[in-house]
Amino acid sequence: MTGDTATNRQILLDHLPQGRLDESSFRAQEVARPEPGPGQVLVRTRYLSIDAANRAWMQGATYRDALAGGDVMAGGSLSEVVTSNDAVTLNEAGLVPGDIVESDHGWQEWAAVPAKRLTKVDVRGELSHHMSVLGVTGLTAYVGLLQIGRPVAGETVLVSAAAGAVGNVVVQLARIAGCKVIGVAGSPEKCAWLVDELGCDAAVSYREPSFFKALKAVCPDGVDVYFDNTGGTILGAALSLMNLGGRIVCCGVVSQYDTSNPEPGPRGVPGLIVTKRLRVEGFIVMDGWDDHPERCTEATDALADGSLKAFEDVVEGLDAAPGALVDLRAGGNVGKRLVHVS
Amino acid sequence: MTGDTATNRQILLDHLPQGRLDESSFRAQEVARPEPGPGQVLVRTRYLSIDAANRAWMQGATYRDALAGGDVMAGGSLSEVVTSNDAVTLNEAGLVPGDIVESDHGWQEWAAVPAKRLTKVDVRGELSHHMSVLGVTGLTAYVGLLQIGRPVAGETVLVSAAAGAVGNVVVQLARIAGCKVIGVAGSPEKCAWLVDELGCDAAVSYREPSFFKALKAVCPDGVDVYFDNTGGTILGAALSLMNLGGRIVCCGVVSQYDTSNPEPGPRGVPGLIVTKRLRVEGFIVMDGWDDHPERCTEATDALADGSLKAFEDVVEGLDAAPGALVDLRAGGNVGKRLVHVS
Repeated sequence: MTGDTATNRQILLDHLPQGRLDESSFRAQEVARPEPGPGQVLVRTRYLSIDAANRAWMQGATYRDALAGGDVMAGGSLSEVVTSNDAVTLNEAGLVPGDIVESDHGWQEWAAVPAKRLTKVDVRGELSHHMSVLGVTGLTAYVGLLQIGRPVAGETVLVSAAAGAVGNVVVQLARIAGCKVIGVAGSPEKCAWLVDELGCDAAVSYREPSFFKALKAVCPDGVDVYFDNTGGTILGAALSLMNLGGRIVCCGVVSQYDTSNPEPGPRGVPGLIVTKRLRVEGFIVMDGWDDHPERCTEATDALADGSLKAFEDVVEGLDAAPGALVDLRAGGNVGKRLVHVS
Repeated sequence: MTGDTATNRQILLDHLPQGRLDESSFRAQEVARPEPGPGQVLVRTRYLSIDAANRAWMQGATYRDALAGGDVMAGGSLSEVVTSNDAVTLNEAGLVPGDIVESDHGWQEWAAVPAKRLTKVDVRGELSHHMSVLGVTGLTAYVGLLQIGRPVAGETVLVSAAAGAVGNVVVQLARIAGCKVIGVAGSPEKCAWLVDELGCDAAVSYREPSFFKALKAVCPDGVDVYFDNTGGTILGAALSLMNLGGRIVCCGVVSQYDTSNPEPGPRGVPGLIVTKRLRVEGFIVMDGWDDHPERCTEATDALADGSLKAFEDVVEGLDAAPGALVDLRAGGNVGKRLVHVS
């Protein structure tokens, strides 16, 4: 830990964006470091998670309240327990100073958080891995692909935003499950990475003019499971390629987060869902929380033996967070994007 | 059986319709009564099933091949076994003259059908019931509502085309399951029938200018299961009203069968599917075929004790079939529409 410990630097959402998000929606401020009140714990932010969902929270209430101008920008963190209002609070929460916790206090260096809102992390190996394959990102891929998509060896799995935080883990899990895996990403460079580094059987850029034709060409047996991080055009293309009894895992809608007026859904809804007997299912990662410890053990073993890799894209310093989010929305990341705060 | 038994009157699909179907797409012809060839059985049509799906088959390949101009119009029938090419064929199929079978030979008085394509019907009570609550229509409601929708007592079930063949059975099954049931239909008269005769808690006409507002008002606790026979605007409204963890049963898309260019899907796809963690699932009735005998026994008992009612809308004579389908598309039926042929 370094730097001034008497002040708390924060990044605020200055105002809700209209259309495409840019850095002018944010501003920094410094306030006094908070003192923990009764039942609260003072924590110091180590890593912030930068996610497409950060943008979605600006659109309206989702599984959390909508953000408003003037709020500290919301986001998940890995933070370190510093102190509390009293020893009883720490004891009851099973925490000691130095413990690492997941905390939802947003883009700031310090926070005084009710102990019951902190989740202790059983750190194994690299701390940052608890924001990628060992954290919510990895669990999202696991719950979505294995519990909702339920791929069977030999089936074809299509993944959008395949080079992204969740997508790259989905690709790896689908390969481990013995599936043929097709990735969709936003540039030829990412597509090359998907095939060469991640082991996709093929990858197609959705920015290609002949995207649908190119995608169809690499899915000669159709698609059995489509892991949808995007919605929009890619979802429409996937619906056309789905096999009878196919499953579409609805994980996110990154194509629609930069607008307050989402475009209509694909033409195949609900016609193709009926005729192909598809299951189209949304989920959030909390639905699979009970499996998290077991899943972490599996993933730790897989990291150790090299069958699973953690792909992380770490940006340095709290002030870089707005740019890191804007660039993520433009497709700038490969793997899980994090901000290293302290 | 009456009438000329030497000729076979047929209704042909003269040409594929563009846009709204009318009777000019059909024409009648008379040909010689067919003689059953090896392995074939001569059957005489008793009842034809008139379904919204008849129109969908004109749009392209679904779970069956697309229809083409000049084809005998496709449709399911209850038919009577007359004779076969040889006794072995009947024996192997477990049939005797006079047996009732389900046959897919379309809109004609007679047909010579391969024995293996006939399904013997264990007739209980009224023959026509095997086309409504005891037949494919009833099984569709049963599989869709109970196996896909899985309503729990106390939940709210919303049903579109609720006065239709499948819809009226879904409403009855949802009430038996202890659910609050809201029906959507196309006229104030049908809505009154849904509440007064069928026992819906409320019913709303989708033709009302303030349809969404009216629907919302009668769903104060949201919607847990939406049984979708229509797609389009009603599906969009339902997506807005779905509760977390809700299920949308995709049974049909009657709003889109009169066009070769279906309209875009609702704006909430896939955004609301993600945030509300919905399951949106298509099925076809064949998926539940193994349950059919048991289901028939249950439904026969329920008909006998009055807890289930068969609502049928029978039109007289083969030549009335085109008009019966056109009028069904315009919302003319209440309950299951049949044509009585012989």
